[in-house]
Amino acid sequence: MDQKLGRASIRLQEPVYILSSGSVVGTKEGQGPLGLLFDTVGDDDMFGCETWEDAESSLQKDAVYLALTKAGLTQDQVSFLFAGDLLGQSIATSFGISVYQIPLLGVYGACSTCGESLTLGAMAIAGGYADRVVCVTSSHFASAEKEFRFPLEYGNQRPLSATWTVTGSGAFVLGNESAARGMTNSGIGEKKLRPRARITGMTVGRIMDYGLKDSMNMGACMAPAAADSLEQHFVDFGCQPDAYDKIITGDLGKVGQRVLIDLLREKNYDISTQHMDCGIEIFDAQSQDTHAGGSGCGCSAVTLAAYILKQLEEHNWKKVLFMPTGALLSKTSFNEGKSVPGIAHGVVIEAV
Amino acid sequence: MDQKLGRASIRLQEPVYILSSGSVVGTKEGQGPLGLLFDTVGDDDMFGCETWEDAESSLQKDAVYLALTKAGLTQDQVSFLFAGDLLGQSIATSFGISVYQIPLLGVYGACSTCGESLTLGAMAIAGGYADRVVCVTSSHFASAEKEFRFPLEYGNQRPLSATWTVTGSGAFVLGNESAARGMTNSGIGEKKLRPRARITGMTVGRIMDYGLKDSMNMGACMAPAAADSLEQHFVDFGCQPDAYDKIITGDLGKVGQRVLIDLLREKNYDISTQHMDCGIEIFDAQSQDTHAGGSGCGCSAVTLAAYILKQLEEHNWKKVLFMPTGALLSKTSFNEGKSVPGIAHGVVIEAV
Repeated sequence: MDQKLGRASIRLQEPVYILSSGSVVGTKEGQGPLGLLFDTVGDDDMFGCETWEDAESSLQKDAVYLALTKAGLTQDQVSFLFAGDLLGQSIATSFGISVYQIPLLGVYGACSTCGESLTLGAMAIAGGYADRVVCVTSSHFASAEKEFRFPLEYGNQRPLSATWTVTGSGAFVLGNESAARGMTNSGIGEKKLRPRARITGMTVGRIMDYGLKDSMNMGACMAPAAADSLEQHFVDFGCQPDAYDKIITGDLGKVGQRVLIDLLREKNYDISTQHMDCGIEIFDAQSQDTHAGGSGCGCSAVTLAAYILKQLEEHNWKKVLFMPTGALLSKTSFNEGKSVPGIAHGVVIEAV
Repeated sequence: MDQKLGRASIRLQEPVYILSSGSVVGTKEGQGPLGLLFDTVGDDDMFGCETWEDAESSLQKDAVYLALTKAGLTQDQVSFLFAGDLLGQSIATSFGISVYQIPLLGVYGACSTCGESLTLGAMAIAGGYADRVVCVTSSHFASAEKEFRFPLEYGNQRPLSATWTVTGSGAFVLGNESAARGMTNSGIGEKKLRPRARITGMTVGRIMDYGLKDSMNMGACMAPAAADSLEQHFVDFGCQPDAYDKIITGDLGKVGQRVLIDLLREKNYDISTQHMDCGIEIFDAQSQDTHAGGSGCGCSAVTLAAYILKQLEEHNWKKVLFMPTGALLSKTSFNEGKSVPGIAHGVVIEAV
C-alpha cells in the first residue's frame, strides 16, 4: 500500500490513534503556566532516586505506566516501545523502561526525538506490524546540564538566548483502528475510554547545518531545520500554513521562533499566526528566569501529552502540525569546535 | 496488511531487497581474516581527519557513498536514512551523513544498531513508505575507547574476556521489488547489477539484564539478550535452529558465545552447529591480540556487508538469521555502578 508523499513525507492510509498519554514533570514545570495539566508533578527533582540519571529513568517509567493505565492496557498488550533521551548512549531509556520487557527500538534525534518516536510508531502500526506501540521520551535539567554544559555547583551564568532543559517525560500509546475500538468498549459505566487524537501524516527532517556554534543559542541552531522541514511539509502535502490551527515547534524558544518566522517569510510562507513553541509555553520566562524558554526531549513530549492533546480533545483545535526540533551536538563535538546542526520531524495530529 | 507474527516478530508479506552494501574498515581489520573482502581499508585509522570522531564520521560517509554507487543510485533516490553509532549523541552520524541531505531517522541500540536499522528500514519499505532507504552504522576503536574506557595513551591492560572495538562502517541500500527490478535494468552490458539478498522477517529484542557489571566482559553481558531474542524468534516463526544455515550474532566473542550456547541448551535449543559470531570471524585473536574478539556497531555491519552477503550471493548459504547484540552502558552508568543490560535484534536474510 503506497503511503509515500514525495520523498520525505508520508500520508497514512488509515489513521493511527493516540490512545492515551502520560506526563510526569519536575517542580519547576509544575509551577509553570501548564502546571495544573500534567499528570504528575514531582516534589523534588530526584524523584526518590540517588542520581539524576536514575531520576530521569524513573520519569520514563512513570510516564509509560500512566499511559498504559489510562488506555486500560498492560505492558503485554504492546508490541514495540520507541524510546530515547538526551543522555549519552540513551541510559535514561535503558534503565527506565527495561522493567516493562517490551521489545525496544531505541531512537535518537536530540530534542526532536518525540517527533521521531511518534513517526516510527505510527509507521509500525499503519504498516500492520503492531496493534499497539508505546512512544516515550524524556529529559532532566540536571542530567542534561551535567551531560552537555557545566557542573550545577559551578553556578554558571546563562545568556538570554539560552534555554532551560525541561525535567519531564511524555509517553504515548498509539494504536490502530481495532485497538481504538477495543479501548472504547473496555470503559466501565459512564466513563468511556476514548482515543485522544489521531496521527494522519508525517514529514521526516534532514540535518540542516548553518555553521552556528553557540550551544547557548540552540534556538537559532535549530530554526533552519524547522524551516526546512516545514517548507518540505507544505510542498509535499500541497498545503499552506492555514491548513493548521497550530504549527507547533518543540523548543526553539523566543530567539529561535523569530529566526524561524523570518526564514519562512523568505520562502513566502507566513506562519506567524499559527506558530506556537512548546518551550515558550511551558515556562513563564519572566517570573521563572528561564530566558528563551524550555528545551529538551521532555519539553515537547509533556506539552503534547498535557496541553496540545487536550486542545484537540476539546475541539478548540481541529488539526495541528507538531514538529519537535533537535540540536545535534555532544560535549565532545562542542569541545572539538564543531557546529551545532539541527533536525526537525513533523507529525500531523487531528482531533478524533 | 497484517505482518505481525506474535508480539515481537514480523514476517514480511513482500520481501525487502538488500540492493547493495558498502564496507570501510581500519588497518587492523584489513589485516584480519576477512581483510580482502572489504571495499576499502584505511592506510591509517585517522582516515585523513583531525580527530577520531571525525574519522568515524568519514567512515559512515564513505560507506554510504559506496553503497549508493554500487546500486547505481544517487542520494536523491533514497527516502530515508536509518543511522547510528556508539558515541554520545551519535555524533559520528550527525557529522558523517549530513552531506547527503537524506531525511534522517537516528537509531540507538549500542552494538545491535545494525540490526535495528535494518529492521526499521525493512519496515519502512514493506509498509509502502519508501522505495529505497539506506541503513548505516559505525564504530571506531579509538573513539570508543575514549568514550567508554581509558585514554589510549594510558595503555591499560585488557583481560582476556575483553573485545576489541572494530574500526569500520557498513552501509546498506534496501529497496522494494520495483527498486530491485529498476536496479537490474540499469546495469550496462555484461555486468548486470542485482540485489545481494532479501530480508523476509525480523524479531525485535527486549532489554535483558542479568545484573552483570563487568564492562570488560560484554560478551557475557549480551549473551542473555541474544538467547532471549533467539528463543522468541524460534517460537514466533515456529522453527528450530536448523531452519538456518547460520545463526549469526554480532559481537559476543568467545566468552559470550559459550554463554549463549549454554543458555539456549537450557531452553532445549542447540545452536552449536549453526552459530557464528562476527566478532570471532573478523580478527585472528591469536596473532592480532584481540582477546575475545571484535565488537562495536561496525563489527556486525562490515561482516554482513563483506562476508555474509557474499556467502548468500554465492549460494553457499541459503538463509541466515543475523542478530547483532548490544550492551547498553555509558561511562556515566558504569561509574554510577549500574549493570550492563543487553539487547539483540534478529533479521532473517535469504539468498535471492
